[in-house]
Amino acid sequence: MSELEVLTVELGNRSYPIYIGDGLLANPGLLKKHIVGNQVLVVTNETIAPLYLNQFIESFSSDIEVELVILPDGERYKTLEYLNNIYDALLESRCSRQVTLIALGGGVVGDMTGFAAASYQRGVNFIQVPTTLLSQVDSSVGGKTGVNHRLGKNMIGAFYQPKCVLIDTAILSSLPERELSAGLAEIIKYGAICDFVFFEWLEKNMAKLLLKDVDALRYAIKTSCEKKAVVVAKDEKESGIRATLNYGHTFGHAIESHMGYGVWLHGEAVSVGMCLAAKMSVEQKALSHDDYLRIESLCRLAKLPTEKPVEMTASDFLYYMKVDKKNTSSTIRLVLLDAIGKAGIFDCADYNLISAVIK
Amino acid sequence: MSELEVLTVELGNRSYPIYIGDGLLANPGLLKKHIVGNQVLVVTNETIAPLYLNQFIESFSSDIEVELVILPDGERYKTLEYLNNIYDALLESRCSRQVTLIALGGGVVGDMTGFAAASYQRGVNFIQVPTTLLSQVDSSVGGKTGVNHRLGKNMIGAFYQPKCVLIDTAILSSLPERELSAGLAEIIKYGAICDFVFFEWLEKNMAKLLLKDVDALRYAIKTSCEKKAVVVAKDEKESGIRATLNYGHTFGHAIESHMGYGVWLHGEAVSVGMCLAAKMSVEQKALSHDDYLRIESLCRLAKLPTEKPVEMTASDFLYYMKVDKKNTSSTIRLVLLDAIGKAGIFDCADYNLISAVIK
Repeated sequence: MSELEVLTVELGNRSYPIYIGDGLLANPGLLKKHIVGNQVLVVTNETIAPLYLNQFIESFSSDIEVELVILPDGERYKTLEYLNNIYDALLESRCSRQVTLIALGGGVVGDMTGFAAASYQRGVNFIQVPTTLLSQVDSSVGGKTGVNHRLGKNMIGAFYQPKCVLIDTAILSSLPERELSAGLAEIIKYGAICDFVFFEWLEKNMAKLLLKDVDALRYAIKTSCEKKAVVVAKDEKESGIRATLNYGHTFGHAIESHMGYGVWLHGEAVSVGMCLAAKMSVEQKALSHDDYLRIESLCRLAKLPTEKPVEMTASDFLYYMKVDKKNTSSTIRLVLLDAIGKAGIFDCADYNLISAVIK
Repeated sequence: MSELEVLTVELGNRSYPIYIGDGLLANPGLLKKHIVGNQVLVVTNETIAPLYLNQFIESFSSDIEVELVILPDGERYKTLEYLNNIYDALLESRCSRQVTLIALGGGVVGDMTGFAAASYQRGVNFIQVPTTLLSQVDSSVGGKTGVNHRLGKNMIGAFYQPKCVLIDTAILSSLPERELSAGLAEIIKYGAICDFVFFEWLEKNMAKLLLKDVDALRYAIKTSCEKKAVVVAKDEKESGIRATLNYGHTFGHAIESHMGYGVWLHGEAVSVGMCLAAKMSVEQKALSHDDYLRIESLCRLAKLPTEKPVEMTASDFLYYMKVDKKNTSSTIRLVLLDAIGKAGIFDCADYNLISAVIK
């Protein structure tokens, strides 16, 4: 096994480590020290289970009782109904408050398992083992958990931090290209909102990342997690700066909700959202037109879509954007850029302007 | 309106007041200062709505947009499925994170509304307006929220504190006798676990309480809320002393789960549970047989059941008690008494002993 990187999300007595390394899934020692009782419930999905579940379960020592929930794969199953499968398994196995839930999967598995952990018996331990690039650089860190509602994405959930995050870069070797690109969208986001140097690094190294070069991926993951950890430590519950991590997400969530969960991947929708938000930043903030084009080019280089779905109208977007979690009263809250690497929050009451940008 | 009592639950920057008075429902000024935005969602049930809803809604000023959810009345509707009705209403009304949820009802409405508030957009404001004696003295204070699962009571939920609790004693005039008695069970509990003087006061004043004497009720409610507020301030998330508030509840929850939610009222099940726990305290702790009889007599005086349901066997009890939230690994955690007014926590691995007490 190659070098192990350890970052920390600093949240006082709820601080936790992020482990990043190649082959960590076969290293049970790391997990073991974060498991308190002798009961573990592993939640995964039908795609990941045949690839990694046996290897993962075998790494536990024999004194640990391991229960399993295998969910169907996909954003459209991120619902209260499928969440109930996790509660059923916990109660049918008589799991006590000392149980540890482990999410072995992408963002859907992580978000659902985290919310199950937040709400089972009013809160039990959980651990994130993200298996997609997108969940490794974004959703597994920071404690946002929840499920979708037919009227809005992630509308039901909790802020609830894991005990640790274990990122095995070896898993990415089996990741489909489309999902690799989706993860790159969130990585580009970090460059766009807070690190121009990293943005330039991505421009130079995108080809390597698409070829799954191990060192390039590890550097991109580590840099992304570092940035997220700093923001979460400053503003765990998103009363301020954390909202900038939603760059591209307000438009993006509208696409995901309108098109049907899972039809567009989250990262794909965020890519289009970043381009729309950049365009709006040119209109409303100091972003130059050249920098807007640079963001669009980098998304295209990452094999991501940069144009909205043809069938979506501006009013389709506004319908969903009006109920975004960041909003206060009748304005729509957007994250816009003053420059590449410099984001700010902007309350927009001018729906015509948003419509014009979308068109 | 008569005198207003104000208690405080001390939880740092999440501290909140409990208002107790006669006719508070017609006093909108108290509520208004705890509502942040201009959207309110009132959750109530089919029994309370015709009695108090109009009066309550009319008290809001015209700049507040008031939405409504009316749930069916009863513990058997305290489920994820009916919780979804609240999410639906919130999203259909495009409620933002600034919405304030108000629970106007008993423990079921309060627990469900609180959990909806804890989880909608990962947390919005809420206010408790309890309308039963039981919810006024117990469930509305302290931030335990949640729903039942078919395999266990309150198994899904969160610790989430309200912004205030508004207790209008005038509402009790319409409370059915059976529900009055159910509330008295929780009041007796406070005497039994931590206040012998209050226990004696209850012995002397039970007749007045059953006649809904306003001064006696107010004193009993205030004393109960004071005790609960102190315990919650010391141990919000039940890592220690708060567990003593569950005196009678481990046996009681088994009765509620086994008999079907709502067949026995919570307070009725707790009454039997307190008698069983007292009996076990005679066997295992220092409680005298006379004091056990005294607890049983006081419950009987309050017109509460003191004997387990005839159809329930000891193994029926154990089935549910083994998955109680307080347990650690294979023992059953019980709250037992050393004396009236002195409770402690006891981990029992001897299921035969528990069976013998139940028989």
